[in-house]
Amino acid sequence: MTWKLTNSDVSQPELLNMESIFALGNGYLGVRGNFEEGYGKQMTSIRGTYLNAFHDVIEIPYGEKLFAFPETQQKLVNNIDAQTVLIYFGEEDEPFRLDQGKITEFQRTLHMDQGFSERRVHWTSPTGKEVRLTFRRLVSFTHRELFAIHIKLEPINFSGPVKIVSTLNGNVKNYTNPNDPRVGAGHAERMTVVETGTRGEYGYVVDETMVSKMKAACVTRHQLTADAEIALDTKDGEIVYTATFALNGPVEFTKFNVYTDTLRHGEGFQERAFDLHERLSGLSFGDLLAEQTGYLNDYWKSADVIIQNDEKLQEGIRFNLFQLLQSAGRDKYSNIAAKGLSGEGYEGHYFWDTEIYMFPVFLMTQPELARQLLLYRYSILDDARARAREMGHSKGALFPWRTISGTECSSFFPSGTAQYHISADIAYSYVQYYLAAQDRDFLLNYGAEVLIETARLWAEIGHYYNGAFHIDEVTGPDEYTCCVNNNYYTNAMAKHNLKWAAKSCAILKDYDGAGYQALCAKLGVTDDEIAAWEAAAAAMFLPYDEALGINPQDDTFLRKAVWDFANTPKENYPLLLHYHPLTLYRYQVCKQADTVLAHFLLEDEQSLETIRRSYDYYERITTHDSSLSSCIFSIMAAKIGNLDKAYEYFIETARLDLDNTHGNTKDGLHLANMGGTWMSIVYGFAGMRLKESGLSLAPAIPRDWEQYAFRLTFRGRLISVRIEKGDVTLELTEGDAIDIQLYGETVTLQPDRAVSRPLANLELH
Amino acid sequence: MTWKLTNSDVSQPELLNMESIFALGNGYLGVRGNFEEGYGKQMTSIRGTYLNAFHDVIEIPYGEKLFAFPETQQKLVNNIDAQTVLIYFGEEDEPFRLDQGKITEFQRTLHMDQGFSERRVHWTSPTGKEVRLTFRRLVSFTHRELFAIHIKLEPINFSGPVKIVSTLNGNVKNYTNPNDPRVGAGHAERMTVVETGTRGEYGYVVDETMVSKMKAACVTRHQLTADAEIALDTKDGEIVYTATFALNGPVEFTKFNVYTDTLRHGEGFQERAFDLHERLSGLSFGDLLAEQTGYLNDYWKSADVIIQNDEKLQEGIRFNLFQLLQSAGRDKYSNIAAKGLSGEGYEGHYFWDTEIYMFPVFLMTQPELARQLLLYRYSILDDARARAREMGHSKGALFPWRTISGTECSSFFPSGTAQYHISADIAYSYVQYYLAAQDRDFLLNYGAEVLIETARLWAEIGHYYNGAFHIDEVTGPDEYTCCVNNNYYTNAMAKHNLKWAAKSCAILKDYDGAGYQALCAKLGVTDDEIAAWEAAAAAMFLPYDEALGINPQDDTFLRKAVWDFANTPKENYPLLLHYHPLTLYRYQVCKQADTVLAHFLLEDEQSLETIRRSYDYYERITTHDSSLSSCIFSIMAAKIGNLDKAYEYFIETARLDLDNTHGNTKDGLHLANMGGTWMSIVYGFAGMRLKESGLSLAPAIPRDWEQYAFRLTFRGRLISVRIEKGDVTLELTEGDAIDIQLYGETVTLQPDRAVSRPLANLELH
Repeated sequence: MTWKLTNSDVSQPELLNMESIFALGNGYLGVRGNFEEGYGKQMTSIRGTYLNAFHDVIEIPYGEKLFAFPETQQKLVNNIDAQTVLIYFGEEDEPFRLDQGKITEFQRTLHMDQGFSERRVHWTSPTGKEVRLTFRRLVSFTHRELFAIHIKLEPINFSGPVKIVSTLNGNVKNYTNPNDPRVGAGHAERMTVVETGTRGEYGYVVDETMVSKMKAACVTRHQLTADAEIALDTKDGEIVYTATFALNGPVEFTKFNVYTDTLRHGEGFQERAFDLHERLSGLSFGDLLAEQTGYLNDYWKSADVIIQNDEKLQEGIRFNLFQLLQSAGRDKYSNIAAKGLSGEGYEGHYFWDTEIYMFPVFLMTQPELARQLLLYRYSILDDARARAREMGHSKGALFPWRTISGTECSSFFPSGTAQYHISADIAYSYVQYYLAAQDRDFLLNYGAEVLIETARLWAEIGHYYNGAFHIDEVTGPDEYTCCVNNNYYTNAMAKHNLKWAAKSCAILKDYDGAGYQALCAKLGVTDDEIAAWEAAAAAMFLPYDEALGINPQDDTFLRKAVWDFANTPKENYPLLLHYHPLTLYRYQVCKQADTVLAHFLLEDEQSLETIRRSYDYYERITTHDSSLSSCIFSIMAAKIGNLDKAYEYFIETARLDLDNTHGNTKDGLHLANMGGTWMSIVYGFAGMRLKESGLSLAPAIPRDWEQYAFRLTFRGRLISVRIEKGDVTLELTEGDAIDIQLYGETVTLQPDRAVSRPLANLELH
Repeated sequence: MTWKLTNSDVSQPELLNMESIFALGNGYLGVRGNFEEGYGKQMTSIRGTYLNAFHDVIEIPYGEKLFAFPETQQKLVNNIDAQTVLIYFGEEDEPFRLDQGKITEFQRTLHMDQGFSERRVHWTSPTGKEVRLTFRRLVSFTHRELFAIHIKLEPINFSGPVKIVSTLNGNVKNYTNPNDPRVGAGHAERMTVVETGTRGEYGYVVDETMVSKMKAACVTRHQLTADAEIALDTKDGEIVYTATFALNGPVEFTKFNVYTDTLRHGEGFQERAFDLHERLSGLSFGDLLAEQTGYLNDYWKSADVIIQNDEKLQEGIRFNLFQLLQSAGRDKYSNIAAKGLSGEGYEGHYFWDTEIYMFPVFLMTQPELARQLLLYRYSILDDARARAREMGHSKGALFPWRTISGTECSSFFPSGTAQYHISADIAYSYVQYYLAAQDRDFLLNYGAEVLIETARLWAEIGHYYNGAFHIDEVTGPDEYTCCVNNNYYTNAMAKHNLKWAAKSCAILKDYDGAGYQALCAKLGVTDDEIAAWEAAAAAMFLPYDEALGINPQDDTFLRKAVWDFANTPKENYPLLLHYHPLTLYRYQVCKQADTVLAHFLLEDEQSLETIRRSYDYYERITTHDSSLSSCIFSIMAAKIGNLDKAYEYFIETARLDLDNTHGNTKDGLHLANMGGTWMSIVYGFAGMRLKESGLSLAPAIPRDWEQYAFRLTFRGRLISVRIEKGDVTLELTEGDAIDIQLYGETVTLQPDRAVSRPLANLELH
């Protein structure tokens, strides 16, 4: 059970949050969960339809613009709106609206097992007409351009004329809020209508972005089971479909909307939309639902996580996994935006969130999707090279802190461009992919180039000091401390990056000498350069404080005063909305996991004791003002044997959006945190790691749970993992026999032969 | 001699630079040296008239706006233009324009002894009319609202009709350049005409700023020695005066323009302008010139510096002193803008430049003006308090990095707000004033409050670490290294600030117990707090590197890699226009004097050996990309006994604008550097210092000089200092006997009895 997420609240601001929660998407197309008929006039709505990576370019304003500050940024645009369907009852044309009349029943449901949303309303109009309406929507996983709405009308106490007015609207605007740095501040109007028209039963709208000159088309077709008088008109950038008919019994109405754009579909994008419609014309809404269910069956087979006896958590984890699937870009133009396709927060930009918080989920459940995410980064490698030159580096590639099309969109470099670690994070994800897939061809064709170009960045900006390799003036993940020297996280990740650039070369030299030589020739890699990477990695300075026995976050972090938490009122969190950055920088206070994150990603760099002491130290000074934090603290609490604490942090992550605990779910879902939930379970409780030695597990079970289970896709195998009080059971569901490590012991999994082992007690007492 | 600065170049871009060079001003009103008749259409001009501190408020745009980023800034507006006078010759109305016809003679002269500019032109029109024109202008030092233009026309080879069209134009715009962070990027149109009209012989225009709603009026009156037909019309925000007459011999034309504004003249500002005109009506241009000369005689009596046998340098130093006098605000609303009143660079903002680079000149030559500059800072103390609260400090005052009206106008905090040292710099200037004037009443009424509130800032942001008082996350003067811990300059200045806050309390307690108690009550100062300041000052951490024997610029500066100067092409300077700030921060490279400046201002904090070694170290890595640098290196080279080097740096400063060595003189003069020239001579070569022990000198003379001389105003005395090869001669020109220190020896100066001493050889060999 718990495949359905339901909600019955029609009050503001719950409606706004639910728009994000009930958003549908397929990685290409996303539609917020707005009401077809809209809300009352006094109510706010962020009505949104997005095509992943479909953006306009806007100028970045500066009071004082310094050299190499990006001049423009990209902004995901709110696209042509196909959501609107208005229904009028009776001779009086009484509109169906939830702020008028009487609601007897209201319930909406997200069917996560079948991939559609449903809204059931039992409503009585102000003059007493009683009707039952059922709205169902889907954004197809199998036909990425398709968004369909199905409405069933059932009259209860009347018969008479009904009018359905369905529009396709090209007059769209983005949502803005000048007072929240996490949302776009201006530039609401980015799209203009360039064409509207009808062709047979189709209505279509073509919009164009103001500066980037990308075009999108939406072509709509309607189906109605009643015998109706139909009109299809164009009006001021809109297509208006009007159906008038007599309602005597149940009637079904379907609206099929196909989106195409110049980015994916080229210049013929508009005709392509008509072609797609023709191809889909034989499919009913029910047929589409069946396909959708088939797709999701496959997904859940590899991705589902089961938590027994806790419906709330079960709901949370499934919701998160469902939204991740809905958000991930499936082509080289797109990735996973910080808010997926569920809202406009962070303007549709891609961050390191993908590589560190979301990629691992796909890597171990949907490797093909993980590979796509890597290909996106490869596609922007030239932009990263250009950015490195602009930043004054003669070699290498610097990936942008936030971007859609590949160029840096961050206007505040101390917590943007200065986060050079993003390049190492991307390199890390390529290494993880290699460890999971052992795909040497991919390494040769894509991975090595990324590893080499990012390694060069560290060689470029680092330098030797007293025999150690130092990296100065970068910002780690913690944005409450910026522009520091020898950030532990950055140095450790750079070390990994340098080491793996060299290692990739060695692997490829063995695997495909000619291919390797060609790559070296193309990139100008020499043996001396490789040796320099190895030397820098070996000499990498990883700060360590003897007195505390911990890794300091950077060279001077521990010398700063500790933030006065005792005198910071609760309402002053998140601190970034109440203190000037300089004031935050001045103190030992962390927005999120930084050194602790490095200890997770690269656990073999330090002893467990150092990791444990560091955890305790940083936990006291971390506010978790970022949604990227709690999951990492959960994983690391589990690692150091504090399962209760791991569970507390896990609880924070599992229902962050469902319970709107960060207060800004209306701007879109926190996708990284959603990945973090899965990671808390799989890396945290189950102790999964992926290293050169292979896949390993070290499971534990939280006190409150009876059983939990998940599956891992690894080198073509599907492995079921079930953890109960007392036992862990592994089963190879698909693929050939394979060795994995369980609590450090090698276990050989054979097809369809479950292996059980007693659960180790890893807890610290 | 060398009281006149002349120039005969009419080419672009020399014209643009000369607009700044020939700017006239009196601290209230400033007019750029534009041509009355304008230039050719293809030529660029920055036509400007400014009222000090008269500004509009503009929104600061941000791509990502974080907490307490200033929302608005002030911008000095280009004011009503009274410069235009067009002259037409003959029946054909041939306009006088230098890009047409033939120039036989062109010379313009800045009469620095008399305070006016003159432009003499011998010109033949395209049809052959030969005429001599002499334009003279003054901005009155004795009537601050007055700007007068006097034109003499002398026909050489013709007689006939002449038409003079003189306008007063309210349609004015600011100059903008989006690609230079040192100039305003936008917001060109800030003033709108609210009234134009005529009243008898007067024409007037009233303009208002768009947001701040400040109003300015300019009332104009014309005088002509010829019998002419006169028309006075209003037209589209302009007043147009037209005089038509027959030119048979020399004719003189005078235009008197009186500016008033709501900031100084209140709501009756417009009538006030007419009143002032009435009062001035008896004065001819010649009378005004005589007054002007009288004023300047007084100024030069105390301020002149004589360098024998070097006309270029003599010209440079006089020009600089003249422009300083023209720029300094004389009321509580105004200070000295970074570009004075000569251009729009830095948007008319006041920086620390005033306190550290310009105030000392006035302190020792025009103490009353120095006092005015301090009163301006006192007038914005409440804004500084509010800013400290906004930055999260529970006590104290944080002065804005750049401002006009008192609020922070810096939009890029790492090299703006983070320069907390500005508060200590202001405190330092109050202490210097006290040391010069020993005015305990001023200390009680103004100085102590500023010292106390600024000291509180350090107590607030500093903290004890290993027994030493640390100050984290500030930026020192060097903007190529930002947001560091224990910047030597900041810590040393903060120590001085803390010490003097406590000392002021002790002085005032003795001087006026009741007044002191009232002050303490007003500010809530307790003995414990004073003791805490003293303790923090005593424990202040001043970084020192044992191995190098120098003061590191900050905690981690010396651990960074040294900038690769060898591979930095010449055209990449100034570095800030060619490298991203993060890249600059990453290396040991200084834009300007930082630790070296601290060693100048607080020389007793370190041994001469540490100072010398530090100088040598920082000199190698300083680019002097800021015009605030060379003068300090000159002073300190003199201090460490390297007079040749001191002289080289001095040469850089003396003619920076005259020779446009920084390439941006068109945007206004470098006022701080102008003060620095004087400082290089007086603090540098002559070794002047002002300490608790009194006034001291330690003169040397550059190899190339025969003799130099200057005067110092000190505690009501005027002291002449003349340094020749071999001798230094001191003479008390005004006031009672006083002791000063010469090479550490006490010398008592008696009225009109010169004291000579042999010149010590301080040079290092």
